[in-house]
Amino acid sequence: IGAEDKEGLTQLVDGLHESDVAEVISRLEPDERIEFVRLLGRDFDFTALTEVDEKVRLHILSELAPTDVADGLADLDSDDAVYILEDLPDEQSEAILAQLPFAMRHRLKRSLDFPEESAGRRMQTDFVAMPPFWTVGQVIDTLREEKDLPDHFTEIFVVDAAFRLLGTVKLDRLLRSLRPVKITEIMDEDPRTIQADEDQEEAARIFQRYDLLSAAVVDDSNRLVGILTIDDIVDIIEAEAEEDIRALAGAGDAELSDTPLYVARTRIPWLMINMMTAFLASGVIAIFDGTIQAMVALAVLMPVVTALGGNAGIQAMTVTVRALSQREITKRNVARVMARETIVALMNGTAVAVAVGIVAAIWFANIELGGVIACSIVFNIICAGFFGATLPMLLDRIGVDPAVASSVFLSTLTDVIGFFAFLGIASWWFGLG
Amino acid sequence: IGAEDKEGLTQLVDGLHESDVAEVISRLEPDERIEFVRLLGRDFDFTALTEVDEKVRLHILSELAPTDVADGLADLDSDDAVYILEDLPDEQSEAILAQLPFAMRHRLKRSLDFPEESAGRRMQTDFVAMPPFWTVGQVIDTLREEKDLPDHFTEIFVVDAAFRLLGTVKLDRLLRSLRPVKITEIMDEDPRTIQADEDQEEAARIFQRYDLLSAAVVDDSNRLVGILTIDDIVDIIEAEAEEDIRALAGAGDAELSDTPLYVARTRIPWLMINMMTAFLASGVIAIFDGTIQAMVALAVLMPVVTALGGNAGIQAMTVTVRALSQREITKRNVARVMARETIVALMNGTAVAVAVGIVAAIWFANIELGGVIACSIVFNIICAGFFGATLPMLLDRIGVDPAVASSVFLSTLTDVIGFFAFLGIASWWFGLG
Repeated sequence: IGAEDKEGLTQLVDGLHESDVAEVISRLEPDERIEFVRLLGRDFDFTALTEVDEKVRLHILSELAPTDVADGLADLDSDDAVYILEDLPDEQSEAILAQLPFAMRHRLKRSLDFPEESAGRRMQTDFVAMPPFWTVGQVIDTLREEKDLPDHFTEIFVVDAAFRLLGTVKLDRLLRSLRPVKITEIMDEDPRTIQADEDQEEAARIFQRYDLLSAAVVDDSNRLVGILTIDDIVDIIEAEAEEDIRALAGAGDAELSDTPLYVARTRIPWLMINMMTAFLASGVIAIFDGTIQAMVALAVLMPVVTALGGNAGIQAMTVTVRALSQREITKRNVARVMARETIVALMNGTAVAVAVGIVAAIWFANIELGGVIACSIVFNIICAGFFGATLPMLLDRIGVDPAVASSVFLSTLTDVIGFFAFLGIASWWFGLG
Repeated sequence: IGAEDKEGLTQLVDGLHESDVAEVISRLEPDERIEFVRLLGRDFDFTALTEVDEKVRLHILSELAPTDVADGLADLDSDDAVYILEDLPDEQSEAILAQLPFAMRHRLKRSLDFPEESAGRRMQTDFVAMPPFWTVGQVIDTLREEKDLPDHFTEIFVVDAAFRLLGTVKLDRLLRSLRPVKITEIMDEDPRTIQADEDQEEAARIFQRYDLLSAAVVDDSNRLVGILTIDDIVDIIEAEAEEDIRALAGAGDAELSDTPLYVARTRIPWLMINMMTAFLASGVIAIFDGTIQAMVALAVLMPVVTALGGNAGIQAMTVTVRALSQREITKRNVARVMARETIVALMNGTAVAVAVGIVAAIWFANIELGGVIACSIVFNIICAGFFGATLPMLLDRIGVDPAVASSVFLSTLTDVIGFFAFLGIASWWFGLG
């Protein structure tokens, strides 16, 4: 396919959706990707670049001339163009912007001026705005005659001379109204709007809460600057959940197309931190080396205490982290969440402890050992439940993302407490060490 | 507020969005919730029930008379009504359905006949369908006159006499066309449709891939039975990510409003399984009890080997589980994913092993011990990377949800391999045991 057959390629791509083109690009070798885009030339739909992994996109863009990229961007929706431009190095995006027609350059620059991950970056600046004194008939006639409209829209915005938002009219409402009706009579006068500098996750939450399909984005002085539509929001929600999952596992943000070296680099920090915390747990065991020497069964059983504590802690922590990131935890229920996790830990801890105690007592023919391990497990699991709920909330309060930092610290905590409890109680009960 | 002040309550609720009403309900005590719904009577918007936790909803519904529930459901969109009905016990939902007007009962029953979690359950059965021989003018006039239309719609479906889908017309397209144009000329003749018995997650994937706002749901014979809109899809995507996160942590599906006893029950199975697997790891240590007795430093360092193996394994596994659930892993790249995870593990394993080896050698003033622990860590982390990627793919192949079962088995595997490698190599190298 990469055999310079421009026509065959154009035909192939012609019927495909941009997501399918993106998949074709992803499956090609890096060099073939550049060739693919070059061969297609003006027939290449740059929207496909919004669907490929970031590394792939940056690589392709770095090999194309700014004028070619500018030509490609000119046909795009403004939010897709911003998405492609925002990750580029400053000089490169400046060079591309300089090649764009004035109106588009101006709009893109305004979007790029809003902070990263804000609603202003994700918004579409192409929308239909009408003055408040028009009638339904005038609006419909204008829509029929006007050529320069967005590809697709579901509502019309009513703005005053200073472009301040007065209301919105959904298209179905417009269609069902008679021509002489004034649009101010059928508009929704108090639509939910989103501030342009609002964080995109906050915007996503407003969309979800109120089941919005689109919302006006306004600046500080309530002037309409763009619209957010729900398809952009879907991507934000996915990305946020993905971030939580990966942060909980310390798994970095690498994508399937990244090289092993890059993936390794994103994951090594947590392994190194984990190494240090693991040595902390080792230090606790070292305190009791005499005890272990006198009773090797303790070394054999140690991992059971810490594995269960770790597992119970992760359960409590995962639920708390998710509740935090969905804003389900408020000042009113903090105490209830903590109490609940501790009670759950007490119940499950007791159940598991009894089971482990019985197995250990039979295995080593030592009832006292069974009692000792059972006590330490109850204690460790209660601590795990309590800290599993408290730690993420504390981190959240001091402004650290609870998903990122919690799991390594929590597992160290449950390991340290587990070893201390088990070896300490054993050493005291059996008079060892 | 629960002081029988019906009027105050009605006023309070009047301006609130259903999500806000749901939040008010969630914050009340169980008995107050029933009182709240009863007091509001016909002023209570049942849509709010779709936004509260499942337990709360079932509790409220079980206390209301079927006729009251039927009255409440009659005003709802069909997808919301199905959502409320589907979790009820069969007799109760039959009793409620029997009280509904015939047309609505018929539509809800058809939705409920589709399998659980299918597109047919989530679809909205209220839509606007028009015959193919109409013109834009006729369509607009009909929309203006017809009273019994859905509250909100963004496209019109063109169907033949047997209700088979011929195409769709988006409202903006309709508005921009002249009245004499036939709707068949402006319709999209090949819209993406979704089979009613398709799994809802599959439907969500189609929406995301093609950035759809709504899609027609058709039955086996391509007859239009409903529409899916993106706001339903957002909820499905959220629920799916949530499922993955909780399954990875074995955290059960309890919600914030559940009782501690219920939460404990959802979490205990994984603790019990973890207990059994932890004893497996203990068994490995027991094999080497002589070795440990001769060299207690081994017991002190053991947790470092298994903690690092576990962490590296979870990193590889989390990435693989997410790639699987987003259908990013295909037959073509299975081998590449496995190879990549193994290479990453080799690189990071070596780096961490060298660091641990140095610390251990200095701590116990024993260079050989440093070498032994370094070798076992490299070996354990490579196994962790390989199995972390392979295990979820294997489970997926045999039809088990990889998120649910992977983490406990993986951590056992890395524990067993870690203890075996470290104690085995040490026992052989130092000639102990």
